[in-house]
Amino acid sequence: MNSSFYSYLAGFLDGDGSIYVRLKPNRTYRYGFQIAPSVVFFQKHTSEVNLKTIQSKLEYGYLRYRKDGIIEFTIGDRPSIRAFIKATYPFLLFKKPQATLMLQILDFSEKVTSGEDFLRLAELIDQFEQLNYSKKRTNRAQVVRNHLVDQGILTP
Amino acid sequence: MNSSFYSYLAGFLDGDGSIYVRLKPNRTYRYGFQIAPSVVFFQKHTSEVNLKTIQSKLEYGYLRYRKDGIIEFTIGDRPSIRAFIKATYPFLLFKKPQATLMLQILDFSEKVTSGEDFLRLAELIDQFEQLNYSKKRTNRAQVVRNHLVDQGILTP
Repeated sequence: MNSSFYSYLAGFLDGDGSIYVRLKPNRTYRYGFQIAPSVVFFQKHTSEVNLKTIQSKLEYGYLRYRKDGIIEFTIGDRPSIRAFIKATYPFLLFKKPQATLMLQILDFSEKVTSGEDFLRLAELIDQFEQLNYSKKRTNRAQVVRNHLVDQGILTP
Repeated sequence: MNSSFYSYLAGFLDGDGSIYVRLKPNRTYRYGFQIAPSVVFFQKHTSEVNLKTIQSKLEYGYLRYRKDGIIEFTIGDRPSIRAFIKATYPFLLFKKPQATLMLQILDFSEKVTSGEDFLRLAELIDQFEQLNYSKKRTNRAQVVRNHLVDQGILTP
């Protein structure tokens, strides 16, 4: 894979993509939430073949067909996200802050050893909403805090 | 400007841009229509600074602020369109057909010397709607034909 493909993908991502992390409630996880990082490209269903071309060149990522006719090409596993960000980062013009935050979260999530750490992780994840101009500014950290206090993991 | 910027722009265009030509009714033109070619990038208003960055690097194109909160960065003059397409073409993965059709139309429009030629030009322009999966398949060539016949430029 040459660098012009990655600068191409940087432009594709800046124009049409998104970098974010979701915190999904999940009782089987120690702190009650699963961390779901994503790098996503959105296209109309008419451009399915285009996303498949990118997928086959990258050799990772998967397509998700939404009911509203949009197709999402998602890179969701951590090694692929790291590889993708590392390769496109030098060429990003606009989404460098999100790329940096993503790597910071992936690194930090591997070092979480306490409820306080996990709360700090949730606060980092909340920063995406500001960077991505998200309309629904849910305060995930507050939800996490309440849950950890309920579970007796964190003191109020 | 190095090639990685143009491969970046190719990705931006493939992901989020559009190449098309409009035929605008205009009595001051010989055949009754103005040919308006465009290469356009669309972004939410929150990304205004991003489009301005691209604009200042390219040193051409202009911003248009739509009422629905979308900003369009448009390259509308012919020398700039030619320069942009020439530079990004090698890196385009999906919009090569539109880029080729645009150059074909720009070349052909300079050689139009009759109503028949102009009708052929309108037919070329109609091909964009198919390439761009446009919802409203207006048959511009038919409108042009009717006008040219009305004006006595073309025989029915």
